[in-house]
Amino acid sequence: MKKQVDLNSDLGESFGQWEMGNDTDILPVVSSANIACGFHAGSPEGILKTLKAAKENGVAVGAHVGYPDLVGFGRRNMDIASNELTADVIYQIGALQGLATAAGTQVLYVKPHGALYNTIAHDKRQAMAVIDAILAIDKRLILVALAGAPIIEWARDSGLNVVAEAFADRAYNSDGTLVSRKLAGSVLHDPQIVADRMLQLVMEGGVMSIDGKFTPVDAGSICVHGDSPGALEMAKQVRAVLEQQGIEIYGFAHKGDHE
Amino acid sequence: MKKQVDLNSDLGESFGQWEMGNDTDILPVVSSANIACGFHAGSPEGILKTLKAAKENGVAVGAHVGYPDLVGFGRRNMDIASNELTADVIYQIGALQGLATAAGTQVLYVKPHGALYNTIAHDKRQAMAVIDAILAIDKRLILVALAGAPIIEWARDSGLNVVAEAFADRAYNSDGTLVSRKLAGSVLHDPQIVADRMLQLVMEGGVMSIDGKFTPVDAGSICVHGDSPGALEMAKQVRAVLEQQGIEIYGFAHKGDHE
Amino acid sequence: MKKQVDLNSDLGESFGQWEMGNDTDILPVVSSANIACGFHAGSPEGILKTLKAAKENGVAVGAHVGYPDLVGFGRRNMDIASNELTADVIYQIGALQGLATAAGTQVLYVKPHGALYNTIAHDKRQAMAVIDAILAIDKRLILVALAGAPIIEWARDSGLNVVAEAFADRAYNSDGTLVSRKLAGSVLHDPQIVADRMLQLVMEGGVMSIDGKFTPVDAGSICVHGDSPGALEMAKQVRAVLEQQGIEIYGFAHKGDHE
Amino acid sequence: MKKQVDLNSDLGESFGQWEMGNDTDILPVVSSANIACGFHAGSPEGILKTLKAAKENGVAVGAHVGYPDLVGFGRRNMDIASNELTADVIYQIGALQGLATAAGTQVLYVKPHGALYNTIAHDKRQAMAVIDAILAIDKRLILVALAGAPIIEWARDSGLNVVAEAFADRAYNSDGTLVSRKLAGSVLHDPQIVADRMLQLVMEGGVMSIDGKFTPVDAGSICVHGDSPGALEMAKQVRAVLEQQGIEIYGFAHKGDHE
Repeated sequence: MKKQVDLNSDLGESFGQWEMGNDTDILPVVSSANIACGFHAGSPEGILKTLKAAKENGVAVGAHVGYPDLVGFGRRNMDIASNELTADVIYQIGALQGLATAAGTQVLYVKPHGALYNTIAHDKRQAMAVIDAILAIDKRLILVALAGAPIIEWARDSGLNVVAEAFADRAYNSDGTLVSRKLAGSVLHDPQIVADRMLQLVMEGGVMSIDGKFTPVDAGSICVHGDSPGALEMAKQVRAVLEQQGIEIYGFAHKGDHE
Repeated sequence: MKKQVDLNSDLGESFGQWEMGNDTDILPVVSSANIACGFHAGSPEGILKTLKAAKENGVAVGAHVGYPDLVGFGRRNMDIASNELTADVIYQIGALQGLATAAGTQVLYVKPHGALYNTIAHDKRQAMAVIDAILAIDKRLILVALAGAPIIEWARDSGLNVVAEAFADRAYNSDGTLVSRKLAGSVLHDPQIVADRMLQLVMEGGVMSIDGKFTPVDAGSICVHGDSPGALEMAKQVRAVLEQQGIEIYGFAHKGDHE
Repeated sequence: MKKQVDLNSDLGESFGQWEMGNDTDILPVVSSANIACGFHAGSPEGILKTLKAAKENGVAVGAHVGYPDLVGFGRRNMDIASNELTADVIYQIGALQGLATAAGTQVLYVKPHGALYNTIAHDKRQAMAVIDAILAIDKRLILVALAGAPIIEWARDSGLNVVAEAFADRAYNSDGTLVSRKLAGSVLHDPQIVADRMLQLVMEGGVMSIDGKFTPVDAGSICVHGDSPGALEMAKQVRAVLEQQGIEIYGFAHKGDHE
Repeated sequence: MKKQVDLNSDLGESFGQWEMGNDTDILPVVSSANIACGFHAGSPEGILKTLKAAKENGVAVGAHVGYPDLVGFGRRNMDIASNELTADVIYQIGALQGLATAAGTQVLYVKPHGALYNTIAHDKRQAMAVIDAILAIDKRLILVALAGAPIIEWARDSGLNVVAEAFADRAYNSDGTLVSRKLAGSVLHDPQIVADRMLQLVMEGGVMSIDGKFTPVDAGSICVHGDSPGALEMAKQVRAVLEQQGIEIYGFAHKGDHE
């Protein structure tokens, strides 16, 4: 049976007149697009444009929900009450569903963004608020979460389908956690090295940790970036190396397609 | 056959810690709730609460979409491009649909708010942008629009179902238009007079104009307010008088229910 | 020499069409008005109105700066970078200074709001960001901070004038800290008891703690609320009891008036 | 006596993580910087950075006030009440003054942005609201307005100092008005032609109109753009040609410096 893996990237992050990212160039490289929903980034007209482009490229669409913090781009932790967070996440998913319908596509998964992503990986209260939101609006939506983080079990115990995610350009500790961005060597910059690591991830189910040990990372999707020339180049290289080895780049959400 | 009419009111207009309106008191009086969608008013957690209350009261839910102008409460005209307005309206409807799903109910109609409502009554460019939004997200959604305004024909020509609306507390000119709020006598304050006028509207299809002529007003819904003690009293009086005369207060959207 | 104490309250918290608080009724009761600056509450036209009313009542004006979180009313902790927080605070003070000039008055002090107030009481990084902001825009501005909190020393060491503040309706632990709102008895509701406690505070320099010990609280200002009928009544009672005992209600900022 | 003219450009238009313009490159070219104040663009930390750079470059600072419409970048007309517009403008000027103080510089003039700029050129109600705002906060602030527009007289009659402005890259009608952007030839793209026109403007007090007639344009400042490679090149060319002919590029506001 053919090996498959998903490549996902953050899109739709422009806001009004402010451009961010390069949605046109990254869409042919990935199989899943995490699309901003207007709280940390994204304005309706730009989101709609990105959804139409995702549809044209046959790329699966996920809701990239975030904290209500436009000026901070959703990268600042917020101590938000559970019922407010749940309603915020439902609102964002619903808004994206509406625009996706207008674009002739549909929202298949949810990947929280930035500080929310990092917080819910480990903070059970906020994690459950997000899980409750997904259950309340559409329990078929798949949650994308950090490989190895406790949220994966919390979500599965709640009845959600979960896809664990690895980060192409990040170093891992030997316990499977990400090396903190504050430490040297936490972010990898060489496209060939990154591509080879992701090949190892798919073929062997793990990568070499920063201290040189093989570390299992159980991931069904790989996050790549496309918002700078170097990042786009790296994403292309990852895809090329994987495809050369016969690995199919395939949106995980398509497998569990709603209909 | 029993006469029916719909009573609608604006709800869900609180924002965060700021309360507005009295959703609990007005819900038993009306048959349709126009619920704010976050652009001119409404924050997700409060909107969700109102949706649950509407569900409990058996009241039909509509999307009260507005201009993106929170500080101006959507009451200031904005010269917004058509593609931006279309996307803004889709976004708002989608967000409310998501929250409605979570509340166990659904969005059945769209009633634009404030300056957007008034502008699209007569401005074809903006009207078509709103009509296009509804067609793009769900063409079964009914549009509620000002009785006698050109948008009604534009929307019907576009394939939308439209319900025309009268305002309980407003005086009418003899050509069926509303007397401008800038003129004396434009707003009526006596609950009994207002209730009797609405009875005439339902029974005879019109009201007496400000200059004393019977004026046809073809309306399937009557807008009442509930955000002040006097307004709530008036709404109750309208309902009581109509019901005493055997008129059923019935949400128009229920007739054309989606399923 | 006559005893003096300042009474302060939060004002200008309406936003656009949303009313909050009762600025007209509380202004005659207090000597200092903490006025919202638009980030957690307050919109320019309403702020200007409140500033004019403060001027008419001879009440000193302070900048009630907050986190950029309108929907959360600045009550949610935000992990905001120091340079961003500093610029946010300068921006808010400057905006209020501009409006104060237009109202014929001036900003004399700074009292952070909500989650920012609580965080900087103990978090040195964020505290220094706020202190740096005040130093950068006008080092004569007095900082109002929680009595007994470490920020008081940090601010004084930085060269700021600081006024410590007590809360009229809050219980204190015997170490001088506030009893957590999560505990029973943390908030006092009887106007007479509250007024008598504040008399003790001014005359004896402390209050009885929740476990019955006299606890020194070194405060130059007392925070009272005015945003509900009960709160307003309590504030009036505090003022009445203090004045009956010959204590002058006097804005601390007037003493260190700029000119 | 040496000829002088001012070159101004819009700066500080980034918002949070979204970059816009190239403040670093354009600052050495211009003598006046119109800096966004947070309503249509600009967030406090970025504004502060731009103010510091303006100070380092010896460039005069003006408040680029706009409508409260971030997603629309202040380019959409808003029918805003006069008292609200006045307060909005005061708030923005005050906020920029605060940040300017922190940057060691000061706000010397006001140039409205986008739709507000265009509207007040001809709409007396909104123009007077802006004029009233400037008078209320600091009547020494100079208003920059469209050369030939009625607002210039309204502002002078109100006691303001006004500097009229020409647009380097725009064609003019023979009555001194700008050729509408909707018409062919309204925007000029050749840097040499643009530079030569601006030389003529300074030396002869006018330019050739789109239909080939010498047209007087009485302008003390020339608006150049810097937010694209082509625009920056054009701005540099304008400055180079003017300086080669012995014209000094000098901020008008420096002449009327406050102290």
